[in-house]
Amino acid sequence: MSNAYRRLAPLVRELRSAQNDDLADITARICWSCIVEPGDGDAGVLRDTLGVECIFDLIAGWSEMVLQRMHAADPLEARSRNWSGAIARWRPRLTYEHVVPLVRAATKVGARFLVPSDPSWPTQVDDLGVHTAVGLWTRGRLDALHRDARNLAVVGSRASTEYGNNVTGELVVAAAGAGLSIVSGGAYGIDAQAHRVALASEADTVAVLAGGVDRLYPAGNSELFQRLLAQGGLVVSEAPCGQAPTKWRFLQRNRLIAALAPATIVVEAGARSGALNTANHASALGRELGAVPGAITSATSVGCHRLIREGAATMICSGDDAVELWRLGCSDGRLFPGGENQVGPSDAQVPLLEVVELSPRLSDEAVRVLDALRPRRGNGEAELAALAGLSLTDTRAGLAELELLGRADLSDTGWRRVS
Amino acid sequence: MSNAYRRLAPLVRELRSAQNDDLADITARICWSCIVEPGDGDAGVLRDTLGVECIFDLIAGWSEMVLQRMHAADPLEARSRNWSGAIARWRPRLTYEHVVPLVRAATKVGARFLVPSDPSWPTQVDDLGVHTAVGLWTRGRLDALHRDARNLAVVGSRASTEYGNNVTGELVVAAAGAGLSIVSGGAYGIDAQAHRVALASEADTVAVLAGGVDRLYPAGNSELFQRLLAQGGLVVSEAPCGQAPTKWRFLQRNRLIAALAPATIVVEAGARSGALNTANHASALGRELGAVPGAITSATSVGCHRLIREGAATMICSGDDAVELWRLGCSDGRLFPGGENQVGPSDAQVPLLEVVELSPRLSDEAVRVLDALRPRRGNGEAELAALAGLSLTDTRAGLAELELLGRADLSDTGWRRVS
Repeated sequence: MSNAYRRLAPLVRELRSAQNDDLADITARICWSCIVEPGDGDAGVLRDTLGVECIFDLIAGWSEMVLQRMHAADPLEARSRNWSGAIARWRPRLTYEHVVPLVRAATKVGARFLVPSDPSWPTQVDDLGVHTAVGLWTRGRLDALHRDARNLAVVGSRASTEYGNNVTGELVVAAAGAGLSIVSGGAYGIDAQAHRVALASEADTVAVLAGGVDRLYPAGNSELFQRLLAQGGLVVSEAPCGQAPTKWRFLQRNRLIAALAPATIVVEAGARSGALNTANHASALGRELGAVPGAITSATSVGCHRLIREGAATMICSGDDAVELWRLGCSDGRLFPGGENQVGPSDAQVPLLEVVELSPRLSDEAVRVLDALRPRRGNGEAELAALAGLSLTDTRAGLAELELLGRADLSDTGWRRVS
Repeated sequence: MSNAYRRLAPLVRELRSAQNDDLADITARICWSCIVEPGDGDAGVLRDTLGVECIFDLIAGWSEMVLQRMHAADPLEARSRNWSGAIARWRPRLTYEHVVPLVRAATKVGARFLVPSDPSWPTQVDDLGVHTAVGLWTRGRLDALHRDARNLAVVGSRASTEYGNNVTGELVVAAAGAGLSIVSGGAYGIDAQAHRVALASEADTVAVLAGGVDRLYPAGNSELFQRLLAQGGLVVSEAPCGQAPTKWRFLQRNRLIAALAPATIVVEAGARSGALNTANHASALGRELGAVPGAITSATSVGCHRLIREGAATMICSGDDAVELWRLGCSDGRLFPGGENQVGPSDAQVPLLEVVELSPRLSDEAVRVLDALRPRRGNGEAELAALAGLSLTDTRAGLAELELLGRADLSDTGWRRVS
């Protein structure tokens, strides 16, 4: 453990968000965040059972000992998981060499790393159970993210229409009037409009990103992000700095948006919009879900209509409806008992409702390998494993699946993505 | 009874729709139709208990005897109703002098009077129980109204938008492809568009009117009505010829549209659209109800959104959805057992769901008196009673209610409508 401190301690001091002196806790969480992908349930179980600092033992190469302690502490849970798979998945990044540059990148943009012991930790994300965030990388004003129920998630299609933008404006103005912080994903279209109107209404707003907070993706919204930071908004991510937004991280980012607010509203969504994934997470978490109807001739309303038809979402027709939905979400005492931390409903991976068809359904491994593949430059299997945060075995399984679907091929220089 | 035959028999022969030789039955039903307003439950109970021909006794002035027979046949039912009120309500029109000119007007336009013993009687309307039609005045091709489940009601706002018209087209084309007859109200907007597209698709179509079939209201749609009649469509009404469409008759017409089809779809409807009244009747009858969503910024979608939000209507997003809803409506064996006649669920007046706010809720009497009042020419109470089909007592009660609401006032020449 002393090794860890020597390398990271000075950086960690810069990153901590408050007078938080439990540097071991923060350092361990930073390591988890840099080494495992967001939403890793095996990592969550280890942390819940042995404490976050067991990451130091894992980095030191004592994984056998860690697993023995795990089996001793909770034999039933321990037996239900594939630990060799998990360790193999984490191994390519299980070094301080991997962690240090990511942490240094964070210090360069003045990012802060928020941990559960911070007074401003949003306890509502702990409803994600073992899939909860180990910590949050942030830039901006921490208070913009309300640590209690006063948040509303507003998401939607990247290819929004004028109608969708107008409606987003109406809903956000009403939510701002009710003192809510607007949580969204910082993407083009509805997300950007939600942040924009929140800023114009002098409401708090939080952009939850899939990649590092040093990247402010997409670049086309950089002016908006700068304005958001200048005007007291907050940018949040589970992914460490220097990390690109990948498909996997987008899906995990969506689960975080859903967890942060008692209610999520989808303004416009095409049949395969990522907003439907956020909607699914909201439903699975028992959050209130709303969707705005539109013309049945509009492709960007198809997803919303599906959510309403299938009874997954409440129809939202006005700003009042939006605030009412939020209020309904708060009335569930289990989830939002005055902002108190409550452990979530289950340890199970959030199930995908039928309404989401993320095109040919890929395995988790295939999604991550696809994220790591490049269209031109070929990569070797070991290289891909490190990029994807997967074991060599899982990487090979993912590659086989992608090859079958015609989405990856092996060139002279290595594996490439086929688009 | 012989008196009735002498006056009406030759006219009735012209009006009957098939080789139906029960002239007493047809004549009696014609008298009922001309004397009492559609949907009169007291009249329905008398007919169900004593047979339709008791109208001859009522016209002959033997109402005491008729009521004695009623009390003897079904004392419980008899005691639950206000017979003196009913007789007083019918009295102003209880003469052959009132009936004959209406019947003559029907012969002039070649109308036919359809009765339950006709092979083409649409048995599904008998689901209205004691509120069922005593007969139907028709013009056009009787087969356009399918006597079984193969009808779809498509209704909506008079002030339809281009969006609503396009969507109506899409739904009607799909319904036409499924061999359904399109039932609507012949009004401007969605109704007219539904008939128009049905004709263009060579589907059967039926316009259900509130006034007499000699009037083809509204006049602005007369070209459409002529085309409908020329191309094998059908015009239907419960009101006899020579009668104007009144608010009361519009509401009763809506109940008939709902009863004629296993499913009703509202394409566009403002917050107070009459289409919502049709929707209520469909729900109350256990028919399937669908509504098309639209932009939440469109006033003509407010009513549809309310129906969907409150769970009263299924969201319809495509022609396939419309046909599917119809299929669902047919699957209720109680209502549509292969076109067999089944008595409806209850004798109770169809309740209004909360979604309808027909402006300041008026009593039935007030609605009918308001229909009879003219804005300029004043009318005496006796005159109004005859026009409204109400007793003098009920007419006075209606006038008092309307005066309180500022909708009627007493001038030098009599009672006038205030608009």
